[in-house]
Amino acid sequence: MIRVNPERFLKDLHHLRSFGAAGVGKGVVRPAFSPSDIEARQWLAAQIEAAGLRPHFDPVGNLFGLAEGPSLLVGSHSDSQPEGGWLDGALGVIAGLEIVRAGREAGGPPVSVVSFQDEEGRFGVTTGSAIWAGNLALDAADRLTDRGGISFAEARRVVASMAGDFVDPSRFAGFLEMHIEQGPWLFEAGEAVGVVTDIVGIRDMRITFEGEQNHAGTTPMHRRRDAFQGLARFNLLINERFRNVVTPSTVWTIGHVALHPDAHSIVPGRVVFSMQWRDGMADRLHRMETIIRDTAEEVAREAGLDLSYGEMLGLEPVPMDAHLRAALCASAAAVAPGRWREMQSGALHDATNASRLMPAAMLIVPSINGISHAFAEDTDERDLVTGLEVLAGAVARLEG
Amino acid sequence: MIRVNPERFLKDLHHLRSFGAAGVGKGVVRPAFSPSDIEARQWLAAQIEAAGLRPHFDPVGNLFGLAEGPSLLVGSHSDSQPEGGWLDGALGVIAGLEIVRAGREAGGPPVSVVSFQDEEGRFGVTTGSAIWAGNLALDAADRLTDRGGISFAEARRVVASMAGDFVDPSRFAGFLEMHIEQGPWLFEAGEAVGVVTDIVGIRDMRITFEGEQNHAGTTPMHRRRDAFQGLARFNLLINERFRNVVTPSTVWTIGHVALHPDAHSIVPGRVVFSMQWRDGMADRLHRMETIIRDTAEEVAREAGLDLSYGEMLGLEPVPMDAHLRAALCASAAAVAPGRWREMQSGALHDATNASRLMPAAMLIVPSINGISHAFAEDTDERDLVTGLEVLAGAVARLEG
Repeated sequence: MIRVNPERFLKDLHHLRSFGAAGVGKGVVRPAFSPSDIEARQWLAAQIEAAGLRPHFDPVGNLFGLAEGPSLLVGSHSDSQPEGGWLDGALGVIAGLEIVRAGREAGGPPVSVVSFQDEEGRFGVTTGSAIWAGNLALDAADRLTDRGGISFAEARRVVASMAGDFVDPSRFAGFLEMHIEQGPWLFEAGEAVGVVTDIVGIRDMRITFEGEQNHAGTTPMHRRRDAFQGLARFNLLINERFRNVVTPSTVWTIGHVALHPDAHSIVPGRVVFSMQWRDGMADRLHRMETIIRDTAEEVAREAGLDLSYGEMLGLEPVPMDAHLRAALCASAAAVAPGRWREMQSGALHDATNASRLMPAAMLIVPSINGISHAFAEDTDERDLVTGLEVLAGAVARLEG
Repeated sequence: MIRVNPERFLKDLHHLRSFGAAGVGKGVVRPAFSPSDIEARQWLAAQIEAAGLRPHFDPVGNLFGLAEGPSLLVGSHSDSQPEGGWLDGALGVIAGLEIVRAGREAGGPPVSVVSFQDEEGRFGVTTGSAIWAGNLALDAADRLTDRGGISFAEARRVVASMAGDFVDPSRFAGFLEMHIEQGPWLFEAGEAVGVVTDIVGIRDMRITFEGEQNHAGTTPMHRRRDAFQGLARFNLLINERFRNVVTPSTVWTIGHVALHPDAHSIVPGRVVFSMQWRDGMADRLHRMETIIRDTAEEVAREAGLDLSYGEMLGLEPVPMDAHLRAALCASAAAVAPGRWREMQSGALHDATNASRLMPAAMLIVPSINGISHAFAEDTDERDLVTGLEVLAGAVARLEG
């Protein structure tokens, strides 16, 4: 039995949002390697040390709190979206920290904690844990650039002076991650906890159409090679063509669009946009990719545009470990009877990467109105504490 | 007869492109009120003085070279697009300057010259001449902002110390503007000069769709209020609906798109985009506006988006003055027999505004491959000189 301290947990969780506080609600602006992110990690390292663990930065900014000898690893990530909520990954990191402390107070076996770096994808997709797990090669990661053109290699220099080696994953018996749902289902059902059955896979890439930049007054419509019109046509066609392939839980998003030169009076000569899609089945992700590439090529050919692709980043769908999952279910049934469920995670998590190295499982708590990746993201504090107690119960069961 | 000096004209034209030189071909980056624009205007003021005219900045940065007593006004604008060509309006300003000098050498009646400010619409649409002509109220102009949020009022402070009053237009007998075509027709026909019959009208505004910013992995497709999808749907529908209204010379453009928060993993919560349309008939411009507003409202309603509009800027289609136009035609027939035509201008020009104050007319020269508003914009120098000679011939005829 690990008796967590809800006040201490919530106090630290609120303190963490002071790093990069947006000044809008509880929102935070704490992208990976930003000054706020580094300050937050340094504060976390101090808390880790105070909790009796050894703080350790690896070369890509993942911060571990290492117990002596073999242990479970509990955590998530403390970087945020450009406009992020206060919980997201921060919740799982502080939950891990509280379980470390409460476990120590209970005299149980030690637990390790982690805050992975760049889960939110300033550079890639769950970049820090992906590199650690070998899902992304370090030299390939180093070539990734953020939207301002800064490379991952350049950005991670800020942690170079603090960093040691990558941590040997064999010291960990398993990985448990607590996170907010980031979707509407638990909130709408009035439930407190979800135990994740599997995490969807993701594909993400940038697509560029190059047309001809020209005067918007004197270039007749039939002579234009308008890159934005190419994007609009591509969007229309994939929406139509996906219908035969997707399920109700499949999602796809064009979330980033950059026109060039992006002026009212100029026919856009170039558009770079993001194409991201997610599904629980690797085969479906592949079929969607085929539609995307075929459609982009068709649009480019018909509209006289040049087409190029950025590197495709991706993570495969992964089932959660049955043994860890059973411990979470048993704990949820004890702590929150009738107020929990098993469910798929449509959000990507560091657990996807960790599952390549060790048994991994997750539990999630409700997002009010399903909102996340926004300053308005929030969760009832009673649900946060319930989630923490379910997590602590699972750790105790696994260690017992 | 005014005998222009082609070498002097071309030398000054090339010198002007040293202000804000892009370092890519002959391209320039000289938006209104930028340091390069102000330096260029100060250099022009010195040339104006050397040519025996009185340089005069008005409160919005329009630079006049004023002859004593009544005169024709010749000129255009020296500001550029964010990625502009070396000719565009600069050609008409230097042509005016050369005609001032050549006219003086010929002992003819004096000619005045002008470089209007912000023709390229960093803030509005042909902002400087529009204010001068009363097509845009100064206090309304002062509230316009550029894409970085800087107001026109703030930007024009940079000329405050140099500025006198607005110039009384009654001192000018008429306005002649030389410009590049910015379209493909003269170049493809191998002709050197076009005399403009009329200038199309323009409407330009920003439209905003507000949806709900949310997580791109956990928000099911049917629950999204994706602002980008609203834009794509709007674009599709107006393209369909315009078909019944437009002619082959009607144009419309979505050249600027800003998503918020513009991240791969976030369903776009907001899009602000530009909608610009041009036609020779005021009635058609109005019918297009009705389609635009009806369609935007329909899309917003169906997709659960909020809709708002920025201020609509516009200029009416205007016919060129018959007397000035006849002088240009007679001169073109003499200078470039068989190599000129009369034609509509699809590009907007300062002459649109000047025509409200005085008789106005224009001549245009070819754009190689029809390219403009781009660094690659260019014109054969022989055509530039031919255009200058046609303009000088017209001035001589009008003064004779």
